Amino acid sequence: MRRWNGWGDDTHQAELADFAKALIAELLGETKPLSDASLQEALERVPPSRAPDHPLLDTSPETRIRHAAGQSFPDWLQMRSGAFENIPDAVAFPETSQQVRDLMAWAAGHDVILVPYGGGTSVAGHLACPVSEKPQITVALTRMNRLLDFDKESQIATFGAGVRGPDLEAQLAAIGYTLGHFPQSFELSTAGGWVVTRSSGQQSLRYGRIEQLFAGGSLETPKGTLEIPSLPASSAGPDLREIVLGSEGTLGILTEVKLRVTPLAETEQFYTVFMPDWESGVAAVQAITQGRIPLSMMRLSNATETDVSLKLTVPEKKLSKLNMLFKLKGLTDQKCMLTFGLTGSKKQVAANQKLANAYLKQHGAKRILSKMLGDKWKEGRFKGPYLRHPLWEHGVGVDTFETAMDWSALRPYINVIEQKVTSALKEQGIPVFAFTHLSHVYPQGSSAYTTYLFPVASSYEETLERWKIVKKVASETVVAHGGTISHQHGVGRDHASYLPAEKGKLGMSALKALSQNFDPDQRMNPGVLIASETASNTEPA
Amino acid sequence: MRRWNGWGDDTHQAELADFAKALIAELLGETKPLSDASLQEALERVPPSRAPDHPLLDTSPETRIRHAAGQSFPDWLQMRSGAFENIPDAVAFPETSQQVRDLMAWAAGHDVILVPYGGGTSVAGHLACPVSEKPQITVALTRMNRLLDFDKESQIATFGAGVRGPDLEAQLAAIGYTLGHFPQSFELSTAGGWVVTRSSGQQSLRYGRIEQLFAGGSLETPKGTLEIPSLPASSAGPDLREIVLGSEGTLGILTEVKLRVTPLAETEQFYTVFMPDWESGVAAVQAITQGRIPLSMMRLSNATETDVSLKLTVPEKKLSKLNMLFKLKGLTDQKCMLTFGLTGSKKQVAANQKLANAYLKQHGAKRILSKMLGDKWKEGRFKGPYLRHPLWEHGVGVDTFETAMDWSALRPYINVIEQKVTSALKEQGIPVFAFTHLSHVYPQGSSAYTTYLFPVASSYEETLERWKIVKKVASETVVAHGGTISHQHGVGRDHASYLPAEKGKLGMSALKALSQNFDPDQRMNPGVLIASETASNTEPA
Repeated sequence: MRRWNGWGDDTHQAELADFAKALIAELLGETKPLSDASLQEALERVPPSRAPDHPLLDTSPETRIRHAAGQSFPDWLQMRSGAFENIPDAVAFPETSQQVRDLMAWAAGHDVILVPYGGGTSVAGHLACPVSEKPQITVALTRMNRLLDFDKESQIATFGAGVRGPDLEAQLAAIGYTLGHFPQSFELSTAGGWVVTRSSGQQSLRYGRIEQLFAGGSLETPKGTLEIPSLPASSAGPDLREIVLGSEGTLGILTEVKLRVTPLAETEQFYTVFMPDWESGVAAVQAITQGRIPLSMMRLSNATETDVSLKLTVPEKKLSKLNMLFKLKGLTDQKCMLTFGLTGSKKQVAANQKLANAYLKQHGAKRILSKMLGDKWKEGRFKGPYLRHPLWEHGVGVDTFETAMDWSALRPYINVIEQKVTSALKEQGIPVFAFTHLSHVYPQGSSAYTTYLFPVASSYEETLERWKIVKKVASETVVAHGGTISHQHGVGRDHASYLPAEKGKLGMSALKALSQNFDPDQRMNPGVLIASETASNTEPA
Repeated sequence: MRRWNGWGDDTHQAELADFAKALIAELLGETKPLSDASLQEALERVPPSRAPDHPLLDTSPETRIRHAAGQSFPDWLQMRSGAFENIPDAVAFPETSQQVRDLMAWAAGHDVILVPYGGGTSVAGHLACPVSEKPQITVALTRMNRLLDFDKESQIATFGAGVRGPDLEAQLAAIGYTLGHFPQSFELSTAGGWVVTRSSGQQSLRYGRIEQLFAGGSLETPKGTLEIPSLPASSAGPDLREIVLGSEGTLGILTEVKLRVTPLAETEQFYTVFMPDWESGVAAVQAITQGRIPLSMMRLSNATETDVSLKLTVPEKKLSKLNMLFKLKGLTDQKCMLTFGLTGSKKQVAANQKLANAYLKQHGAKRILSKMLGDKWKEGRFKGPYLRHPLWEHGVGVDTFETAMDWSALRPYINVIEQKVTSALKEQGIPVFAFTHLSHVYPQGSSAYTTYLFPVASSYEETLERWKIVKKVASETVVAHGGTISHQHGVGRDHASYLPAEKGKLGMSALKALSQNFDPDQRMNPGVLIASETASNTEPA
């Protein structure tokens, strides 16, 4: 069953090997876990529901708790402590667009706040409802999960927006197709959630970001239905798809999505090579992307992440043999793992592999266990978040942040970000450990994704304070280098105060004007995307 | 010098061969030209300027006439008759963003209307100013045409938005790069114009539409400057680039554009093959695109366009020999020309050619003068619009319309569109001749571009009426089949009344909300994009 207070299904238990614990001790010193609340304890703290009656609502405390938060670090602390800042008054489970339309009208009549809920995997604070005098209803789209239409000729599949990754791919695989959208949250996250948070899948290099896969659909808003027709391209004015993409539930509820799908590829292969150092690795991925070699994914880990990954992936006994191989090939502790994928027809894959290999060789790539490590990556591609649990139980907090920026900005950014983050808690004498990778590479630039670990404090409050300090340092460094506040996680509440740096004052007023157009009473997921304090400071239209 | 009353530079004179005239006689019967106004006659009809004083303004009648219209068919009739419905009171030629900002403030102070002008090549009525009690100033961006910044690492070139195609490519070629954006209007149209009308270049298959090439820039609006930073990708809320794209001068004036450029390719080749018929041609381009074979362009002419193209391209004497070759290869009058391009490194081109050839062969492609006809296409790629002149002088009106739709909608559309258009003037006994091609092909669907010819009437008014009838039939057929009202020409005034069919009522109110946000006094290019009657019928926010 899905965990009420953490990531994923409780049948999957990640564990920390002894030598991982030793590594943590070396990096972070002695760590001590906080004690968690039991579900029973959490349930006892759930306040009575203020929801007006409606046949679709579930007001049971457990359902409400299970939809009270996402997976951001502050959300995690709420779940582990059982002390939620706020809990929705009820959860609605609509099964049709018409039911969502009815809910919209009902919400207006009863002046309640609506918070759309897809897979509940947000790591940016999209789901932790704000405290409000109005009742808050979370609208879970989970039951709208079917393939509604398939236009084979145009390769457009229409799904209920609440369909989860595996269900979506299974329904497509049955007819020989794939969407090819595989974010790390794939097991739990939904098609609608991907669209409204502008998600990016691990194989975006082949399939595109969700922006390229989302062809149209239906958005139910307080002002009515916005139907976006499916078109291959159009020059007819601003693109409304691009207003729905990234709207994060503030304009309405996406109920149906038309997605651009692809026949299942004949073959798919993943390989790992080792680059002599970070600079040669960056040069290689940049050259391959700018050279338009159609790989299906690339991920370049920095030396620290390479070291940690190998230690977590390769059994301890084999590691010393591997290290000898590295030495033999002239690789030092500066080496960087580069994993890449090839997807398509056998002919295409063969042709592209040749083209890619020429670039890799030119930049000094060494092949060691290339296929095996590539397969390991594939095997573990959705398993990262499960590690939060054993780390937490070992007294370690873990979080990630990410950005994207042009290549010219990325190189200086990479030079400082880890230093900034690892010294963020220096004044308090608290160590932070961080490592980084590039996983979405564009001709123009790249995403940069940093994972960091720190010891939890002796209380939840203090632990949250530690996180806030690190998050602030990270966000400010991202913004100062001209990076986007998020390449793939969205804005939510956690990033809202950094959005004006990217959109500008006039851009923010445009977003507010759109919000007013679709949701004049501001009942859709308030505080997300547009920070509340800014929202009240409304500029003249 | 650039023609004041038609297309392009007057040093290039297109001519109709005798057999083309014979073909016209066969198709349209006897045609008789209308008499044109001279520039002198037109100048005499220019009303006095009502423009308030400003140092950047040119109020000379010739400058005003030369900026009074674009290249739509109604624009053409105005230019040829010298009877302009309206002429701007002055033309401003700013050279810096600061000057545009100053103009904005001045325009507010003097309550004048501003109409941005790039290359003046619009074929959708973007530039023919509306009649208004307020003075109308056209803002020509032509002098803002320099490469302002080049980020080599990120392959981002920043240009003044008024830079024309050839000037842009020349400045890039000097440093070894290309934008690769080649609309048919390339010789005259501007980077800023491409962005605000969502232009598509002939090699969009490789380089993408302008949506993919436009990374950011500066929009000067009545409410201030909207700076869009250059980012490779972002999940931070709705994408403001996509609001500027297609804004058609209604939100402000784009002064600087950041463009994603590519190193000049090692090699580029164009080939033409002949498909047995339309259905096999469509199947081939669809399969190649859905198979992700990275060609740089594909254009499939229907049988009628194939016939006309060959007659216009191949000298009469050689045509009979060519026809024997066609017979020999089993090709009938149903054959369809398919021209395609390969661009990239020699290795890439060789690999992709192999992959494409397999598809072509499978669908029955025949190679005849493949390289020669491909080169002919390249040579004439920007010359089509010059043919308007000899046709007009021969008493023939010519116009085009275009759309894009999903493959499932395209096949039924193609079956009826030419029949609809060629019989549009049937009641009056007037013949219309039409032919069609697909030139922008996507996995999901395709553009469809129809050219039509009809005899001009005995007066300008009646000729305009003929055009209006055909245009209405064409537009209604496009919309009825679920096509976009424009794949590459934009909305302007000519398509504005069909936009609500695509955007919906709620979508239109969103566009109005954006317009109100940036231009509360509605002085930016009014009547474009949002039809005036609809605009006044403002819905509650």
